[in-house]
Amino acid sequence: LNKADVVKHILRDREQTPGHKGSAFAPANIALVKYWGKSNTELNVPMTDSISVSLGSLGAQTTLCVRDRGDDFVMLDGKEVSSQSSFYQRVKKYLDLFRSPLSPFFEVETCSSVPVAAGLASSASGFAALAKALDDLFGWGLDGRELSILARLGSGSACRSVYDGFVWWKRGQSMDGMDSYAEQMNVEWPSFRIGLLELSTREKAVGSREAMQRTIETSHLYSAWPEQVASDLDDLREGLEHRDIERVGRVAEHNALTMHATMISAWPPVLYWLPESVEILHRVWKAREEGTPVYATMDAGPNVKLLFEKNADQSVISLFPNLKIVD
Amino acid sequence: LNKADVVKHILRDREQTPGHKGSAFAPANIALVKYWGKSNTELNVPMTDSISVSLGSLGAQTTLCVRDRGDDFVMLDGKEVSSQSSFYQRVKKYLDLFRSPLSPFFEVETCSSVPVAAGLASSASGFAALAKALDDLFGWGLDGRELSILARLGSGSACRSVYDGFVWWKRGQSMDGMDSYAEQMNVEWPSFRIGLLELSTREKAVGSREAMQRTIETSHLYSAWPEQVASDLDDLREGLEHRDIERVGRVAEHNALTMHATMISAWPPVLYWLPESVEILHRVWKAREEGTPVYATMDAGPNVKLLFEKNADQSVISLFPNLKIVD
Repeated sequence: LNKADVVKHILRDREQTPGHKGSAFAPANIALVKYWGKSNTELNVPMTDSISVSLGSLGAQTTLCVRDRGDDFVMLDGKEVSSQSSFYQRVKKYLDLFRSPLSPFFEVETCSSVPVAAGLASSASGFAALAKALDDLFGWGLDGRELSILARLGSGSACRSVYDGFVWWKRGQSMDGMDSYAEQMNVEWPSFRIGLLELSTREKAVGSREAMQRTIETSHLYSAWPEQVASDLDDLREGLEHRDIERVGRVAEHNALTMHATMISAWPPVLYWLPESVEILHRVWKAREEGTPVYATMDAGPNVKLLFEKNADQSVISLFPNLKIVD
Repeated sequence: LNKADVVKHILRDREQTPGHKGSAFAPANIALVKYWGKSNTELNVPMTDSISVSLGSLGAQTTLCVRDRGDDFVMLDGKEVSSQSSFYQRVKKYLDLFRSPLSPFFEVETCSSVPVAAGLASSASGFAALAKALDDLFGWGLDGRELSILARLGSGSACRSVYDGFVWWKRGQSMDGMDSYAEQMNVEWPSFRIGLLELSTREKAVGSREAMQRTIETSHLYSAWPEQVASDLDDLREGLEHRDIERVGRVAEHNALTMHATMISAWPPVLYWLPESVEILHRVWKAREEGTPVYATMDAGPNVKLLFEKNADQSVISLFPNLKIVD
């Protein structure tokens, strides 16, 4: 089974005639239990489940229409994207899955409020928004499960970005990934805070796709990762049910550092951390020692994200003046 | 079996009458395949074998004589060590193993050419020198195996510091650690270089003993560590036989980063790295990309040690002007 088969299966009885325009927004998301490693690299089927929280209004707004000749045309934040860029190529390859005589080419316009390739999962919100915009354009009326699977084909973690709030991505059991999709969790926690500390928006030296594969292939320690994730998932679910920031923060930070540990033990080593990342981690631990319940998480990049509760707003901001709190 | 039993067993037929004075030198050592985790915390029996290289003239010079009353008296680098300090207490506890009516107390004078507690294994050279000085004082005439076991009772890695050159510490199989000792390897490699980059000589926030235990108890990833060590030992032995700097460097750096990865995945996390440590790691990788075969290793501290060959002296020094090359 390849991506085209999956798309065919999902869209088997659906409308093929595109409307005039489709548009959709999808939030970025930050994993609290990380997605790290694929069991099927073609279909982005993960080795383990993962849990994320979506970033509200930070994400991608995408508008889509059909072009009947030429080639795909992609705009990002108001600028035309060169057809030579890897960004364009990735979008084009994804759109290949949805072409027909009635929709030979597409015009895609995306406005992203998250920095590209800085560990803030811009591809997650991007492909989730694109999948939803396609659904809107064709009028398929797909449900969350179906949208999640389509988004996953573009970028694994995009399958979580089709929802707001806390989201659980079930790895699934089947080889074709038809049961590998995300679902929204039944957790309301308005006082939960995410803070972003942006150290670098430079493109990463090693992309997360490659980092993941290198880790699986060369890190001995990776063999213990699925076991840690299994225990973290239960722990986090209970922490979220009780809105227990110390538990949620502990699981998320431990899980994130363990993911980075698997990369550090790969060969050649993958170290996304900059000197400033380490300085901030030490500052977070000092803040906790001094009584502020604030926790760190990091994705495949140098930036640090902070997790805390609203009542700690003032002390966290005074310790991290550059913090951008997600609303 | 406790430490006293081990000492009794080793010294069973030996002289109990101390001479006038004993003295000895022992080099510091840097592990190329790390010792990380104990199977017996009382006797410092390790989970795995390890391989080190001794640091020539960098180490501890210790002189010892008997005092017949009062208490132990300890001098370090010409200054009296307070009996309240943990250093004094550790020495005293070790000397407890060797007291008799003829040697109720000891006077110990140590000159160390390695900074204390900065990840340069000052306790390794310290306890190796102390064990050898005791052997000299009492005239026991112990062999390398016996000295290695006695040194191990003071600090695990001290068992490797009783030799010069490349040293292999066999974990052994017996519960009492009587077959857990180091041996010199038959490797001559005069052009092998070790460079020290000292970032901090501050005392560590978490001692290596505690870091080791916390890692074993809380890091899921640690379960894969013994397997990595097993493969690294073979790989390193072959690299040393062929004096292959690229292989030796690769194994040593990968092994060291993996050890740190197990700590980073402990809870609470143990991160010995300072921002400067990360900056230097990135610089080492850049140097390699640009063609200089230089590799990094780190112990339970923030400092980075470089491994290279004599013919790279000039380019390594130009990249790392503060480098102190061990002779």
